Amino acid sequence: MRKIDVCLSPDMIHLYDVAGHAVVVVDILRATSCMVTAIAHGVDHIAPVAALDDCRAMKSQGYLISGERDGSKVEGFDFGNSPFEYQHEHIRGRQIAFTTTNGTQAIARSMGAKELIIGAFLNLSAVVAYLQKLPYDVLVVCAGWKGKVNLEDSLFAGALVNALKPGLEAACDAPLAAEHLYNAGRADLLSFLKESSHVKRLSRLNITEDVKFCLTHDAYDVVPVVRNARIVSG
Amino acid sequence: MRKIDVCLSPDMIHLYDVAGHAVVVVDILRATSCMVTAIAHGVDHIAPVAALDDCRAMKSQGYLISGERDGSKVEGFDFGNSPFEYQHEHIRGRQIAFTTTNGTQAIARSMGAKELIIGAFLNLSAVVAYLQKLPYDVLVVCAGWKGKVNLEDSLFAGALVNALKPGLEAACDAPLAAEHLYNAGRADLLSFLKESSHVKRLSRLNITEDVKFCLTHDAYDVVPVVRNARIVSG
Repeated sequence: MRKIDVCLSPDMIHLYDVAGHAVVVVDILRATSCMVTAIAHGVDHIAPVAALDDCRAMKSQGYLISGERDGSKVEGFDFGNSPFEYQHEHIRGRQIAFTTTNGTQAIARSMGAKELIIGAFLNLSAVVAYLQKLPYDVLVVCAGWKGKVNLEDSLFAGALVNALKPGLEAACDAPLAAEHLYNAGRADLLSFLKESSHVKRLSRLNITEDVKFCLTHDAYDVVPVVRNARIVSG
Repeated sequence: MRKIDVCLSPDMIHLYDVAGHAVVVVDILRATSCMVTAIAHGVDHIAPVAALDDCRAMKSQGYLISGERDGSKVEGFDFGNSPFEYQHEHIRGRQIAFTTTNGTQAIARSMGAKELIIGAFLNLSAVVAYLQKLPYDVLVVCAGWKGKVNLEDSLFAGALVNALKPGLEAACDAPLAAEHLYNAGRADLLSFLKESSHVKRLSRLNITEDVKFCLTHDAYDVVPVVRNARIVSG
């Protein structure tokens, strides 16, 4: 039977065989939520960039540049890390270079996967349907926060594990733990997360509406995938 | 307010300030459960040893030697990794050298902590009482399984987080996740764990009674601590 595993932090990626899996990268607050929103609104492609300066340099190549560090938009960048910034008609057909504290680093560490998929609650069911058609074992890579485990990405991993049963079985304990978390919190994810470190951090930045939106299930029927180091509609 | 943090795998220990914390190492199945049992039965001290050969060599220094790899007792060793082996009167006053797949490695990586405490469900309340009197922030280091997160150590971490409220607050999301897991499973830990990879592995080794015993709360009122690289009664 096909298996699903969960890497709760990019700092544990060395324990997993990335090349043998279809990998779903998740950074619910807010990188992959933004990416899903942008692809759903017709962006041609997104170039994930790990370093801030490399991202800035892509402005001269015609890219819109998106940057966030520690939850705040970077000075001089076109966009920050709010999904609402990516819901406008004028981004259709454009190219975006994107760098964030955790999400783009998690993508960089997942290169080489059989398929590299961008997941969020916003496109949960679309990702589930896409994965069900693939022949590969699945690995969910949680972006976490600077190497540490976070609740919101673990919850998404648990939602995927739950939705992919009974076709895919848990490969070890991390997917079981993630699913238990999701079952504990699914009735009201926002309340469940209100004590989490990231939501507290974001509350100080006054973006509760962002958090609410990022927890919405299935707003978009798109599956962004990484092809040739670019995120495109899959 | 004092804080409690949880390192869900020794492979993430680099993210934590071990030297600034009282550290509780946990390997429920079964290293720290054995250590607690042995100290409760009057063992003079336990020398945790990372390498199998180093452990074997201590036999000539008058040590009883305990060894486990992948859940099985090591050929030629006095004890394996079942807590029932450490409940006999003839170990009183003896010294034991102990090496295991995960537990002794987690201890090795936690050296340098302000206090280094051996925790298990078997001595949960004793550890809680001991920690409440210390002035330090607390870090729970889960031994996991070969670097990966496991359910049983995460559950113990959650039990500690839960028991130490409201005096100690969660430092980040991992303690919150662990506590949610514990709350989901506490009514029947054995059933909760029955799908876990380690319990399945141990079932094949036919040691269900070990698992049941290791989930027993507060069988012993001892707090083993590491002093001068030896585990002694604290």
